[in-house]
Amino acid sequence: MPDLPEVLDASEAAALDAHWRAANYLCVGQLYLLSNPLLAVPLEPEHIKPRILGHWGTSPGLNLLYTHINRVVRRRELDALCVWGPGHGGPAVLAGSWLDGSYSEVYPDVGRDAEGMERLFRQFSFPGGVPSHVAPQTPGSIHEGGELGYSLAHAYGAAFDNPGLVVFCVVGDGEAETGPLAASWHGDKFLDPVHDGAVLPVLHLNGYKIAGPAVLARLPEAELDRLLRGYGHEPLYVTGDEPLQVHRALAGALDKALEHIAVAQRIAREDGVRDRPHWPMIVLRTPKGWTGPAEVDGLPVEGTWRAHQVPLDRVRENPGHLRQLEEWLRSYRPQELFDEHGRPRPQVLACVPGGNRRLGANPHANGGLLTCSLPLPPLEAYAVPVTAPGATLHEPTRVLGGFLAQVMADTRDSRDFRVVGPDETASNRLDALYAATGKAWQEEILPTDEHLDRDGRVVEALSEHLCQGWLEGYVLTGRHGLFSCYEAFASIVDSMAAQHIKWLRTARTLPWRRPVPSLNYLLTSHVWRQDHNGFSHQDPGFVDHVLNKAPEVVRVYLPPDANSLLCVADHVLRGRDLVNVVVAGKQPCFDWLDLEAARAHCARGAGVWEWAGSERGGGPPDVVLACAGDVPTQEVLAAAQLLRRLLPALAVRVVNVVDLTRLFPAEEHPHGMPAAEYDALFTRDKPVIFAYHGYPWLVHRIAYRRTGHANLHVRGYKESGTTTTPFDMVVRNDLDRYRLVMDVVDRVPQLGEQAAAVRQSMADARTRHHAWIREHGTDLPEVAQWHWEG
Amino acid sequence: MPDLPEVLDASEAAALDAHWRAANYLCVGQLYLLSNPLLAVPLEPEHIKPRILGHWGTSPGLNLLYTHINRVVRRRELDALCVWGPGHGGPAVLAGSWLDGSYSEVYPDVGRDAEGMERLFRQFSFPGGVPSHVAPQTPGSIHEGGELGYSLAHAYGAAFDNPGLVVFCVVGDGEAETGPLAASWHGDKFLDPVHDGAVLPVLHLNGYKIAGPAVLARLPEAELDRLLRGYGHEPLYVTGDEPLQVHRALAGALDKALEHIAVAQRIAREDGVRDRPHWPMIVLRTPKGWTGPAEVDGLPVEGTWRAHQVPLDRVRENPGHLRQLEEWLRSYRPQELFDEHGRPRPQVLACVPGGNRRLGANPHANGGLLTCSLPLPPLEAYAVPVTAPGATLHEPTRVLGGFLAQVMADTRDSRDFRVVGPDETASNRLDALYAATGKAWQEEILPTDEHLDRDGRVVEALSEHLCQGWLEGYVLTGRHGLFSCYEAFASIVDSMAAQHIKWLRTARTLPWRRPVPSLNYLLTSHVWRQDHNGFSHQDPGFVDHVLNKAPEVVRVYLPPDANSLLCVADHVLRGRDLVNVVVAGKQPCFDWLDLEAARAHCARGAGVWEWAGSERGGGPPDVVLACAGDVPTQEVLAAAQLLRRLLPALAVRVVNVVDLTRLFPAEEHPHGMPAAEYDALFTRDKPVIFAYHGYPWLVHRIAYRRTGHANLHVRGYKESGTTTTPFDMVVRNDLDRYRLVMDVVDRVPQLGEQAAAVRQSMADARTRHHAWIREHGTDLPEVAQWHWEG
Repeated sequence: MPDLPEVLDASEAAALDAHWRAANYLCVGQLYLLSNPLLAVPLEPEHIKPRILGHWGTSPGLNLLYTHINRVVRRRELDALCVWGPGHGGPAVLAGSWLDGSYSEVYPDVGRDAEGMERLFRQFSFPGGVPSHVAPQTPGSIHEGGELGYSLAHAYGAAFDNPGLVVFCVVGDGEAETGPLAASWHGDKFLDPVHDGAVLPVLHLNGYKIAGPAVLARLPEAELDRLLRGYGHEPLYVTGDEPLQVHRALAGALDKALEHIAVAQRIAREDGVRDRPHWPMIVLRTPKGWTGPAEVDGLPVEGTWRAHQVPLDRVRENPGHLRQLEEWLRSYRPQELFDEHGRPRPQVLACVPGGNRRLGANPHANGGLLTCSLPLPPLEAYAVPVTAPGATLHEPTRVLGGFLAQVMADTRDSRDFRVVGPDETASNRLDALYAATGKAWQEEILPTDEHLDRDGRVVEALSEHLCQGWLEGYVLTGRHGLFSCYEAFASIVDSMAAQHIKWLRTARTLPWRRPVPSLNYLLTSHVWRQDHNGFSHQDPGFVDHVLNKAPEVVRVYLPPDANSLLCVADHVLRGRDLVNVVVAGKQPCFDWLDLEAARAHCARGAGVWEWAGSERGGGPPDVVLACAGDVPTQEVLAAAQLLRRLLPALAVRVVNVVDLTRLFPAEEHPHGMPAAEYDALFTRDKPVIFAYHGYPWLVHRIAYRRTGHANLHVRGYKESGTTTTPFDMVVRNDLDRYRLVMDVVDRVPQLGEQAAAVRQSMADARTRHHAWIREHGTDLPEVAQWHWEG
Repeated sequence: MPDLPEVLDASEAAALDAHWRAANYLCVGQLYLLSNPLLAVPLEPEHIKPRILGHWGTSPGLNLLYTHINRVVRRRELDALCVWGPGHGGPAVLAGSWLDGSYSEVYPDVGRDAEGMERLFRQFSFPGGVPSHVAPQTPGSIHEGGELGYSLAHAYGAAFDNPGLVVFCVVGDGEAETGPLAASWHGDKFLDPVHDGAVLPVLHLNGYKIAGPAVLARLPEAELDRLLRGYGHEPLYVTGDEPLQVHRALAGALDKALEHIAVAQRIAREDGVRDRPHWPMIVLRTPKGWTGPAEVDGLPVEGTWRAHQVPLDRVRENPGHLRQLEEWLRSYRPQELFDEHGRPRPQVLACVPGGNRRLGANPHANGGLLTCSLPLPPLEAYAVPVTAPGATLHEPTRVLGGFLAQVMADTRDSRDFRVVGPDETASNRLDALYAATGKAWQEEILPTDEHLDRDGRVVEALSEHLCQGWLEGYVLTGRHGLFSCYEAFASIVDSMAAQHIKWLRTARTLPWRRPVPSLNYLLTSHVWRQDHNGFSHQDPGFVDHVLNKAPEVVRVYLPPDANSLLCVADHVLRGRDLVNVVVAGKQPCFDWLDLEAARAHCARGAGVWEWAGSERGGGPPDVVLACAGDVPTQEVLAAAQLLRRLLPALAVRVVNVVDLTRLFPAEEHPHGMPAAEYDALFTRDKPVIFAYHGYPWLVHRIAYRRTGHANLHVRGYKESGTTTTPFDMVVRNDLDRYRLVMDVVDRVPQLGEQAAAVRQSMADARTRHHAWIREHGTDLPEVAQWHWEG
């Protein structure tokens, strides 16, 4: 134990201990009790929940921290948020917010009295109630405690651009074994002491994860110390199992850490010293299941892995366990903590701050309360001029970069917009951003470096997990952002995206949670253009992944060109409570739509491109060529052009889909098209050849209920990946123009013997391609120089 | 620079430098040259590739390591494998294996001569050629270098149970920012110095990731040192940009590290000291793009981020760049390195070991060469007796645990079987394993701990990334294993699984790569039984994810009970070159099939359960009730029983699907059913109500081409998750028995007014459920006590 000043007098220590005991009591109550919450009568089996589901192990430590963070928030008038990392931390955080009154404010039926306490107990791990983990339903939280690994990244995301905020982050020793958490310790290399708030990590070592010891908890002390200092931190240790001594040590450590933070911020902000501070952190080492039963059925429990779940099981059936539970509950002396109406006594609440300073009521944890709309510039200034479809080429993401740079410039003062990415901002052609801001960087800057800035709002770490976690923390605290990512590597954060979607789905059902800015992905460097990276970089499956999740939250856009990407970006940056996935290329791409046309097209989400087809008014087309994505759009247009030349009598309709979710039936997705609209667009009975950017079966999975589904033939990426040219990639996956024409002639019955000739000429073209590429290593000139002839 | 002994004499240093220069030359050649590989004539534009795609930055450092690892392998007669972590490391490893001759052995058309050199150059990043990353095509590799983060976990996996092996692992400083890599440093807490081999990490700091500096490279030296020692390592530093000095320092550091490893192993193996060694590691700090152009167009390149990709672009078009490229190539003095036939001169090859000691030829990197079949015990000893369907209940994974324990016991000597998992082996009911082995653990062991063993072959770290990475390394080096995981959290490794599937798909096309044991997932604690964890733990999407990938590699099994799980496990543990996903519950589940019936059923993968239906010979059924997964199977059987009582005249067929991929058309998956078989099973025109374990649209995505698809109605998990009882979960997702009966009566036309009455009674039952659960928090007695009545 390092020497820390004695900061608590006896009465303050007693008050803190009372709050802690109250919280512990409330946790045990949540695990076990259906009724009789104040033990007004001796415990009977019928007071016990029929199914005891929950975890005790982590709660006493979290309660201790809630108690002590209360104290410092109140004393120092901190604006503070806490991210609770450990799994099964729900009961503790619920207890803390019930005690500080914020729980009853958002759930008035769970009042801060005996009746409310009974409801609090009953709802826990109960059907229709609340889960064992910290969740959206938990006031004061921005962090789902179920899937471990993201607490510290969330904490840094919350601290970015919130200079007045202190974000406490409790990291469990189980969670600390995960990869994302292990990488998150380096967040300090990206945190600006001037423009960002502070993160105070508390590594809570209670020794065990689920069934075994935790790696960090068992490290020799010196080795752990080296590790944490190697992460850049100045650790403060609080160790013990004697409450009063731990109260004193923890209060001293928190005071010291917050003083250290204040000094570091003052040095940076007032003295202008720009060295990276060695931020403090706390290592809290207390027994797992502390204050719970020391022994059960002759086996040690407190302080061992056996304290992880419920220390006493089968309490309804086992009178000994029932008695032991009652002793355990009474060991907290509830009559000292709650009055006869179940209201916490004044001593219990002595440490609790007021109003919005309460951890359960801090508005940063309900970020929509603080959200301002982004200042989005008019698109006219960034749109590319299009005199005719396909006459010019632009790199769509580069065009987008100009627009984003203006957003970045216009948020210079509000500092509520960030772009994150795994070191690919420039590779993804968004480097115009660097005219408006730099890359956040707190390590040494060398003369040869470019675009590094202490206060940059582009954040680049070669970890998709960190990018995702930071951005989640940023948007959940009410700010805006974009994650630019190689398409294939978005699946690294599949599970994080799923949890964020779950969070939003649940948050939307809670009237007290205000809508937060959407989480926006820009997936680029996509499957069709991995010319040298090859197969490992070819994976369009992130879209499939998110479309399995809550439809009220998920949107997917595949803008076909630069102007439509601008329109989509403008739209998604205005959104709230959504996860938007935008797939767009960075390679030169034909400009099909001028800004006005792009606006109209993106507003519809899917529509006929009359200028590209060969319909002649009136009747239905003979065939529909549909496309979604930039490369499929080009191939469809090339196929349409071939068909116009080879089969001039054929009435071809070209449909482009920007918003993929429009294909869903209206009952399955809020953007889903009504049947009449779908049928009008795609016909009820004509062949539809659909060139899709990703896995073709996704379109079937979306559209299988459509009337014309039997006539729908989808081409897309079918995992025929390799190192090759752009056109060879589409040939290998049968998405090329020649194949699409073959698909048409194979499916339009009235073509007769014309079909065979066209088919043969297309097969010849493919043969020509194979020969050319073998010889030259490039695409056929007729493909490389192709352009739309209107 | 620590003081290291001078270990190289001048001639050895010169030989090493020659090898290194040769490798560097070969890398530049791969990036740029289409022909004229030996610079027999001055470079002309037509010698240059039309598209220059590749990365130079990392190559010189990797080449240096290949050179020096050659030296120590040869001198010490090491059995050594190298995992090359940095992205775009392809050219270096190809150069090394071309030089050691192993490349030409597996690719005889790329001989170790001028003609072969030209082919080596041409194929790189060329259509139909090899990617920029280390890949399955690369001899000596078990590690795809494309998606970063997994090198060190692969290295540990390869070292487990290979006591004679040294696994060098080169970690790039970009990769080191990823979460999985950050967690992987703790692999030393699981590596047994007695039964496992050694891992020697080489952290290669060249300063930059893609466009910016790397976090670890810019740390102050003391902070980096603390971090690496905090990970448990003893770091040795090699820093420099003067080749001779670096050769000397690196040779000394490698000697010292290998000596250190030998001593640590001797102390553990001979002296029986069981303290965790502080294994050595090397920090190699050399300039990015070392020996490349110092400046291009007036801007610094060597040693900066500008050296990441090709230092000289547009070489065909820019005569200055062409000249500079020629100077660069000639700076390696190729005439000293290769004879006039392009064969490496003896000095170049002086450091190269022979035969299987060559890094490109080590059999561990082609693990199928070393694979022995697992000794699988007869299932009879583990199967549960089933006198009648549904008469008894067992926890399927617990039954499996007994079988796995025997496999574990029977591999005590061969040590070629491991079970990995994120600390859930016991939670997943596989704790019988602990009778045969313990959990691998090299940290302190306390008296209260259970099942921890220095040499345990259950490996538990609370990181799905580590579990996956270790198991990949283990199976790719020819051993067997199983990853037991909470279903929802398998998606944490979505991208890793996809890369492994890609690896296997490619490896299967390479005749020289021998089949390796399959990678097996046991997904349990599944979506339907997250009674207290709630929504965050409910996600069946991993199956959807893998089914998007190469069908020749992916298999998915949903055994409905304990005996069928045994049969599936027995099958998947015999497999090669596959990724098998087995989804099975850990909660008590009715035993439907005795061992014989389970064997027959699993062999077919899908079949009619005649005993469960009400068909009476001859004609087709009126309706098919299909199911896949343990919970859906129970609901379908309960629905069948209800139908038998309520509508005794209705001919109901019950079909159970164990092998989900049997539903694919035969053209789309090797296990896909021919149309005739599918139609015979599901009928061509009768309503099929399919109760599926996961997202219902997956079944449509698989079966949309089937004749009877329009009559297929699938129920499954539709993201209506929450904290609740098992039956309430199925009700919320419309997968419950009552809803299934309603689905039947809604779809069988001939029921007439009977339909309305049955429908109403089912709706009443659902209402009864809702009322009961609100009141009691448990499932209806009629559901909780339900059993099959035959």
